Parts: sequence; structure tokens; C-alpha cells
Amino acid sequence: MRRIYLDHIAGTPLHTDVVEAMLPYLKEKFGNPQSLHSFGQQALEAIEDARNKVAQLINAESSEIFYASSGSEANNFALKGFALAQRNKGKHIVLSSVEHQSILNAAKFLEKLGFTFSHIPVDKFGMIDPEDVQKAISKETILVSIMLANGEVGTIEPLAEIAEICRSRDVLLHTDAVDAVGNIPVDVKALGVDALSLAGNQFYGPKGSAALFIKKGRRILPFIDGGIQEGGRRAGTEDVPSIVGLGKAAELALLNMESRMGRIMALRDTLIMRLLESIEHTVLTGHPEMRLPHHASFCVEFVEGESMLLNLDMKGIALSSGSSCTSRALKASHVLLAMGIDHALAQSSLVFSLIDSTAPEDIVYLLEVFPPIIERLRKMSPLYTQYLEEKKK
Amino acid sequence: MRRIYLDHIAGTPLHTDVVEAMLPYLKEKFGNPQSLHSFGQQALEAIEDARNKVAQLINAESSEIFYASSGSEANNFALKGFALAQRNKGKHIVLSSVEHQSILNAAKFLEKLGFTFSHIPVDKFGMIDPEDVQKAISKETILVSIMLANGEVGTIEPLAEIAEICRSRDVLLHTDAVDAVGNIPVDVKALGVDALSLAGNQFYGPKGSAALFIKKGRRILPFIDGGIQEGGRRAGTEDVPSIVGLGKAAELALLNMESRMGRIMALRDTLIMRLLESIEHTVLTGHPEMRLPHHASFCVEFVEGESMLLNLDMKGIALSSGSSCTSRALKASHVLLAMGIDHALAQSSLVFSLIDSTAPEDIVYLLEVFPPIIERLRKMSPLYTQYLEEKKK
Repeated sequence: MRRIYLDHIAGTPLHTDVVEAMLPYLKEKFGNPQSLHSFGQQALEAIEDARNKVAQLINAESSEIFYASSGSEANNFALKGFALAQRNKGKHIVLSSVEHQSILNAAKFLEKLGFTFSHIPVDKFGMIDPEDVQKAISKETILVSIMLANGEVGTIEPLAEIAEICRSRDVLLHTDAVDAVGNIPVDVKALGVDALSLAGNQFYGPKGSAALFIKKGRRILPFIDGGIQEGGRRAGTEDVPSIVGLGKAAELALLNMESRMGRIMALRDTLIMRLLESIEHTVLTGHPEMRLPHHASFCVEFVEGESMLLNLDMKGIALSSGSSCTSRALKASHVLLAMGIDHALAQSSLVFSLIDSTAPEDIVYLLEVFPPIIERLRKMSPLYTQYLEEKKK
Repeated sequence: MRRIYLDHIAGTPLHTDVVEAMLPYLKEKFGNPQSLHSFGQQALEAIEDARNKVAQLINAESSEIFYASSGSEANNFALKGFALAQRNKGKHIVLSSVEHQSILNAAKFLEKLGFTFSHIPVDKFGMIDPEDVQKAISKETILVSIMLANGEVGTIEPLAEIAEICRSRDVLLHTDAVDAVGNIPVDVKALGVDALSLAGNQFYGPKGSAALFIKKGRRILPFIDGGIQEGGRRAGTEDVPSIVGLGKAAELALLNMESRMGRIMALRDTLIMRLLESIEHTVLTGHPEMRLPHHASFCVEFVEGESMLLNLDMKGIALSSGSSCTSRALKASHVLLAMGIDHALAQSSLVFSLIDSTAPEDIVYLLEVFPPIIERLRKMSPLYTQYLEEKKK
């Protein structure tokens, strides 16, 4: 059976060059970068070379890149590290209501320590109004954390405008750019952010590889306390093979950015157009233009997301109904609810997220097998039957 | 040139079977375990299979194993997670003075949140007296964290006795067993601990692979907040290849424990004996018997640790002068100082830690090249010259 992976947002396959780059560090080059001998030196050079590459991808200085084991760790590091370092200045933090769980739940942890949070709303496209950020900032505010792009609905937020507001109010700005970096051009200097999270498994790098950019001079407490790795800001033996893989993936992403984006966006646009044509009662979620190039998300009325997933999986097509960090919880997405989508419709969400190797034939195949699945599932839906009966009247 | 790696404590090379087990998960089996489709299912099965293997290695239930990215993360998770979960019960924690930096510095973080710590002493062998733990526990004490074995001096602590005391006083016990697990038999039920940290790179598994055992029913706060991975206790996309590698390494460690230990201990004992014979003014640090089988540590008077390392490295021999998490800081080890070794002597420490592939010829070669190095370095030492002159009188 044909197997088609359209679940970029849950993690990309590794680029073969990334695996090749990692292999020596899983084999003969196994040293610990902190060791003073030649095995250690070799490993140290490898992680510093990778740091340069990661820095280049986002136009940062290499000394501003701190490795982490996942986007969630990078987000926890940013939120908790900044909050605790700035707590004598104030205890109020501004978030959006569509942040990733690793931001929202890190915030819940900080609430136990006396921090307070404002969750600013989004419009029906999942878009934040910078004016709302402006209004939410008070004298007590020490930090704003707003994502660059949303993994569930693909919307790209107006970060540069938000950054300008934060700068004028002397408040730090962190952005969760896990779904964006490597897929769209990201320039920390142009954006004007103080910190930014990224993860390798969103751009053909390995799982277990991530980083937090921290602008030079910004005070932050370490998240993992311990040894002197990462300039004392992130303890623990460096995961050299994954870091090398992250570096290679960053290099490739920068090199191939434009061609990747162009190709994938064309395919994605075809998918959106044809799918909306061929399946009625279907709406595109997220912003129609300001969205990630690989991302097409929908609500397909009268059908549960999970049923669609399982039926598509039986046809060899892999995708998701939302964030993989909550997918097994099978709850309606907080992102869709924040966008004003009602609870029932939110349960019918699907995210098609394309990867580098997605071929036009994959989209053709998908558009062949998907409509009959929907037709069959709708026939079994009491709500759909009810809708049809009401329509007849 | 012959290259000999005697720096087990900084991390072992990966077993070839471990690399083989990981490769499919770096290639075609790249799914996210949280995805509901077949790619996800495949990844989920892999990490659950690994969890069973890790559990078996330490005689735990698989539901008691929580993955982490390093021993340092596992230690931070245990200390901070227990402290914050139990803080309404009390705010006092007991540590030893020879704990790893990731415990000691996590404690410093918790001090900022109002927790207090007792650091119990060790004897000249680095050994803790369980009586001292007994005395340090007060009505305010919620947690004891004592390592199972010390990476710098190899001493194995009397954990089972300490556990009995903790149980009788109704205080949780965590043990940092990073240097022990996979190298000596570790049975969490026999030890009677509530939590235990382990790391794959201490037993031929990959860097970036570690776990925290948490006994069923013990309340702990998550350390990385976010998604529902690891039963909601550790968010972030699972690092599937590293986890698979950890599982394979655990399986191999259990299978080969006795033969590995016997072989490596015999070689190690030869090394200790011959080295003490051939280089005067040298003392074994740590306990002479209750020590890790692969571990031989010394203070070589009148010579700086770093000079010895660099000279041995030029002869192709890699080892360390202490913990890799602080080695580049070039400070005297807090472990040696706690054992009553004076500051000057503590600067002359060396750790020879053997690996599976260490051959008798490696030890022969080491014992050939090392004494001339020491002789040469001592000739350049003003302290040694002074000593010789005083001796003449």
C-alpha cells in the first residue's frame, strides 16, 4: 500500500544528509564535549559548528543559541527562566490564548509561584491584534510570550509589530517559533524578539534536538541546573549526535528555504482548493494567506476528526487532527475554541501538513480516497441525517 | 597512534547493537508516538518496549519509568518535582556533600523558593554514615537525595540502610544512580528508594537518553510542563531513537552484567595495584572495596590533573580528572574537598574509568607511558623540588 505522510506538524522525517552527519557521532566520535582530551575536543568542535549553523538560520550570534531536548523544554526554559529572573521587577506575563501547551502549562506552574497571566484573544483566523498586546501590558508586566506560527491552524502572527510594542514598553518578548523556524524565513534581528524557541524535528532534523535563542544581555535563570554546559545556562551532557543533526538540518533549511517553500506551497494550495471543492460543509481553519507554507487545516462538519484519521490511516495516509502533544487526549482544541469555532465543529478538525517529499501524485491520491470516506462517515452521522432532513423542509 | 579511552564516567561509546537498534528510528520509522496513525503507533510501541527493558534493568514496573534527556534533567526533575509537590508538608531537604552538581545546583534554585538543605558529610573514603542521615532528618524534612555511587571517586553508598531510615521517618528518598545503573546490579525494590535517576551514556547507550524511576503513588510535579507525554509528567516529543537506544543498552547491560563486571574489575584491580607500585606519592581516592567496578581514581601528588590529562592525551590515552560537568571549570572537586583532601592534592586527581572494550594491552601501554610522564612533570614542579630538598635534610 502507498504510504503518505502528511503530518509535518507531528515531526518531519530526517533528511538523509542529517542522518549521515549524525552517524559518526553515534559511532567512533562518541566523546563528551566537556572532556579535555581529543575525544572531547572533537565533540566540542562538532557542537560549536552546529551552533553556528543554527545561529545562521535565524540570523543570531552563535553565543545566543542554547540547546534543549525539545521545543517544550525550550518553551519551559524561556517562560520559567525569564519569569524567575525578572520577578523582582514584576510578576505579570502576557500570553495569547492559542499558545502551545508547553507555554500554557508552564504558565499554570508559575501561577503557583504567584505570577499572573493575561491571555489575549485571537480573531476567527487565529490572528492576534497587536493592539490587544499593547492594552494587556501593565507596569507589572515583565514578559510577553506569543508564538510566531500556530501548528494547529498555520496562522503566522504579526510578531514584528508586537516586538515593537514590547520594546517601547521595556518588556521582554519570547516567541515559540517551533512550527515556523526552518519552514519560513525567520530573522531574530528583524523580528526584534528577546528569545525564540525552535525544534529540529520541524525541519528534517532529529527528535530530541531543539534550541532557545536568548538575545545577548538578557537575564534568564537556568532551567536545568547543574554543570557548566551551555555557559552554565543548561546543564547536562550535550546530546552530540542530535545537536550535529540539528546543525545539518539548519544548514539545509537555509540553503533550500526558497525552493522548498515555493514547491510545497503550490502543492498545498492545490490541496486546499480541490478539497474545498470536492467536500461540502468544509471550512479552512486559520488564516487564508498569513499561514505556514506546508499547512492546510480544515473543519469537516458532521464527521469526527478521529474517525477521519483512522479511515485515512487505513488508506495509508497519515495526518493529525491537531497538536500531537494533546492528540491522545481527544479533547477539542483550545486553539479552535479560541477562534470562536463551536465545540462540535472543533471536534471535526484535520491538519494536512506537507513534507519535502510530498509529491503531486500524493495529493491526487488523497483527493481520490478522501471524499468517499467522508461520504460514508457522514451517512453514519445522526447530526448529518438531521441536517439533511431539516434542509428538505 | 594507539587511542585508548578510559573515560567511562564522561560517557561510554555506544554498543554497536544499540546503534543498529536506533537506525530504523532515524530513518523510515520516524513517527511521533503521540500520532494516532500507523507511523505513530510504530513509534509508540518502540518506546513502550524500551520502557519495559529499562524497568527490567532496575526491577521496576514499566509504568514507573519516565524518560528524560540527561541524568541532570532526571535529577532536576526529582529534586524540584518532589520539593514543589510536598511543599505544604515541609521545606527541608537532606543531601550529601558529594552529590552531583545537578543536585547541588537544583538545591540552590530551591533555596530561592524558601527550601532549606542539610548537606551531610562523608568520611575519607567518600562514604556516608546512615546515622548522619538519621540525625539530619527533622519534622520539616520532606526529601532525602543521596547518590548511589560517586562518579568522581567510585564510592558506592549504603543506600539500602539510608532507605530504611527514610521509610521509618516517612520521608521520600531519591537516589542519583547515573554512575551506577548498568554497571552494577541495581534493584529499586531491594534498595527501597522512591525515585532513581539513570542515564544511558553510562552503559553504552546514547547521549540524550536518561530516565527517572518514580515509585508508583509518589506525588511529583512535572518538570517540563506541556503535553500529555509520559503520563503528563514530562512534556515534549519523545526522542524515539535515543529511547530505543536506551532500551537496547538496558537489555544488554542486564544480559552481560556479571561477565562485564568480572572482566572489568580484574583489569581495574591490576591497574590500581601496578599504578600504586610504579608511581610514588600516589593515593587511591574513594573506597578501596565499595566502589564501581570500572573505576580507579587517584591523587598523584606534585602534579596537576590537567597537565597529566594533556600529556596522556598526547600519548592517545583519554581520561578525566573528575566530573565532566565541571571539568572545564578547572576547580578543585567538591567531592575530594568533602573527603578531607587538601586543596593542592585535590588538584592532582585523575580518574581512570574502564570500558567494555578496554584490553589488558591497554593497561600495559598505560603503565608504560604514564610513569615517565609523571617523572617529567614532577621535575618541573617547584613543590616537588622543595619536597626533595626537605627530604634530604
